[in-house]
Amino acid sequence: MKETLRLAVPPGTEDVFGARMRLRERALHIIERVYKQFGFELLSTPVLENAVVFNGHHGEGEKIIFNLRDKRNVPLVLRYDLTVPLARVMGMYPDIPRPFKRYQIAPSFRDDEPDKGHFREFIQCDADIVGVADLAADAEVIIMADAGLRQIGFDSYRIRVNHRSILRGIAKYICGYGCDILAFQRSLDFADKVLKQGVEGIKSDLAEKGFDKESIDHLMPILELKGDPASVLDRLFSMLIGNGSIGRGTHELHVILAHLPKDVYSKVTIDFTLARGADYYTGFILEGVIPDIHVGAVLGGGRYDNLISAAGGTSEPAVGMAFGLERIITAMEELSMSVEDENPTLLLFGTCKRTTINCAHRLRNLGVMVDFNPSIEVVSKADEYARKRNYPAFAECGNNGIVSVTPLKEGLHQFFDCLHEAISTIKEN
Amino acid sequence: MKETLRLAVPPGTEDVFGARMRLRERALHIIERVYKQFGFELLSTPVLENAVVFNGHHGEGEKIIFNLRDKRNVPLVLRYDLTVPLARVMGMYPDIPRPFKRYQIAPSFRDDEPDKGHFREFIQCDADIVGVADLAADAEVIIMADAGLRQIGFDSYRIRVNHRSILRGIAKYICGYGCDILAFQRSLDFADKVLKQGVEGIKSDLAEKGFDKESIDHLMPILELKGDPASVLDRLFSMLIGNGSIGRGTHELHVILAHLPKDVYSKVTIDFTLARGADYYTGFILEGVIPDIHVGAVLGGGRYDNLISAAGGTSEPAVGMAFGLERIITAMEELSMSVEDENPTLLLFGTCKRTTINCAHRLRNLGVMVDFNPSIEVVSKADEYARKRNYPAFAECGNNGIVSVTPLKEGLHQFFDCLHEAISTIKEN
Repeated sequence: MKETLRLAVPPGTEDVFGARMRLRERALHIIERVYKQFGFELLSTPVLENAVVFNGHHGEGEKIIFNLRDKRNVPLVLRYDLTVPLARVMGMYPDIPRPFKRYQIAPSFRDDEPDKGHFREFIQCDADIVGVADLAADAEVIIMADAGLRQIGFDSYRIRVNHRSILRGIAKYICGYGCDILAFQRSLDFADKVLKQGVEGIKSDLAEKGFDKESIDHLMPILELKGDPASVLDRLFSMLIGNGSIGRGTHELHVILAHLPKDVYSKVTIDFTLARGADYYTGFILEGVIPDIHVGAVLGGGRYDNLISAAGGTSEPAVGMAFGLERIITAMEELSMSVEDENPTLLLFGTCKRTTINCAHRLRNLGVMVDFNPSIEVVSKADEYARKRNYPAFAECGNNGIVSVTPLKEGLHQFFDCLHEAISTIKEN
Repeated sequence: MKETLRLAVPPGTEDVFGARMRLRERALHIIERVYKQFGFELLSTPVLENAVVFNGHHGEGEKIIFNLRDKRNVPLVLRYDLTVPLARVMGMYPDIPRPFKRYQIAPSFRDDEPDKGHFREFIQCDADIVGVADLAADAEVIIMADAGLRQIGFDSYRIRVNHRSILRGIAKYICGYGCDILAFQRSLDFADKVLKQGVEGIKSDLAEKGFDKESIDHLMPILELKGDPASVLDRLFSMLIGNGSIGRGTHELHVILAHLPKDVYSKVTIDFTLARGADYYTGFILEGVIPDIHVGAVLGGGRYDNLISAAGGTSEPAVGMAFGLERIITAMEELSMSVEDENPTLLLFGTCKRTTINCAHRLRNLGVMVDFNPSIEVVSKADEYARKRNYPAFAECGNNGIVSVTPLKEGLHQFFDCLHEAISTIKEN
């Protein structure tokens, strides 16, 4: 048993390298670049937090927080998410200039059921704006979601948008003011995520949860509204005129939509079946999906104006989103998206190590990425190793410099142009 | 008490953002680029490891491993270092092509004394080559150490080099074959790192630890050898001729030095007082130091041919190094090294949010990093926020596009050229 565990990772955790790491690096690189492009700065918080920091924020979720005690018997936890630490930071450092636009890309930990495919250690990629109530910030979040999916290389993606006030208004409409809005939201989210049967799934799930049939029948035409985002909002408003929550929600979404550049607007679908899981959203919510790829949402977020103060911070409005890294990688794999290194590496080998290492040094000084492998002395081994490492070429070094370059990939003209120029430069000197 | 902890991080951990994060990002970016430039690939292993993985590798160090148990009562640990997980990976995946040149930049955890300035959660930046006995690989490690320090912007740095066989030979020479070599090494390391009094410190520490006076006096001329690396090795060899360990060590260092490009060779100091702390090194060892900056070594490493098999992997030679991130950042701060963003961000503001957000969108599509801040409507606020965020400029957007650009920094010609070109492009369309 012990010996088996010695060569294993704990269930729900993983080692990543090789081809899967190349996909992950590609996705992370783009996500990080997009966050920076929109003026977000990087925040790092510790994996270890005082246990009390996570008290009282995640309801049922608290059961799956990893607990430990240090040598002094102080109760600590491994962070459950990146949002509560952000709230802690806002409370601890009142001098951070507002708005604080921060991103954080780091692992969170949940002692969940690994046999059900849940990761217990997984990377979260959050970007949030703290301190802006202006709906232009909500529009920026949608634009950023669009930029990320586009830059990763997806093209058929849609950005689903809804508003928690609209959900509240619909809930009141179908079952009056005594309605359990949270139960309604959760039923919608469950039907959306788990049943995946569209409005029919919602209908059956609401019925199962005790909502009455007549109300549910009234709900269907609302959930089935489709078309241009602005006109969908107008139709909802005219169907439920006089409902204050609907009024607020449609107004806010109209304002947000009006800020969107045309190309981003064309990617947005208003979808009244979208609810999102987390309880803390207070305004607009969004999700990114890739039709025909059944991985679920590849990003999600929304406005949450009460969480920061609830978590010990000052009272501040906030809006944000997160890309779902694992799902994005799965979607990239399903679409067989090619991942070429932005900076491809040349494998260099030769029998005279001293000459080869000096060639490698000079090429690197000219900006070429060079893997010098002293174990390789013949072409067949170079070919095998370079292919395994996904390199576009290998080069052999003789006693007086590089004697041959063997390309292994088509295209990559810029790489080969730079390489040949660098090789002729080191020959001349 | 609880409320205080709610707004605190555990001792020995930290939040990083703002100016310090910019320094950290700069250093990490260069370290990662250098590792890639030398053909290392990224490996990710989990923070959580099965407790048994870390059994029996770190001697006294095991006392400060963080332990926890999951919901199923399985004993887990937070990883103590990145080297043991590498050994586990080599044992688990025999199909990974050798040599495996991997880097990993990730936090490790030690339940040490935070009141003595020890971090309990800190980033390690390791690069190792597994599966190459050829000393050309050792030379590559020295060349990579040099490339990293040079690219970060240090210029007066030195790379101290020694060999564990030489230390063994010297130990035998001063106190015969019954000598406690480990005790000798540790005394050297302690005198080097803690006493910092040069050979005098070593002399007094060895005397205190019971080495006899005559032997110590014989040792001094050896430790004081200085000058051109190859000639220092020759002088040692002629002083201790016939000592097999010295013969092996000087021979290997000669081979390694012969591989070095001239500019790297000129940065190397052979230093027989260098011992390094870790017990597992078997061959050459190195350290990077910046004279006049008293932060200790900014990098360290060496060859360790037995560790991988001892940690459950197959028997494979290995050589590697790690940059010390915190010390590098401290040195950068002490030298007041300027950290300019490679991709500076423009702050954009305007009273018409819709026009401003569309300008931001078009500028971003042209490659400009834009922070659109909807809370700002007047120049004085823009100026204040942009300076706090270290931005080089802010721009005001009117009803028909950008009406003014205010630079806040000198130089940055490339940034301003690109910016003005992008602004005129969006005006024309």
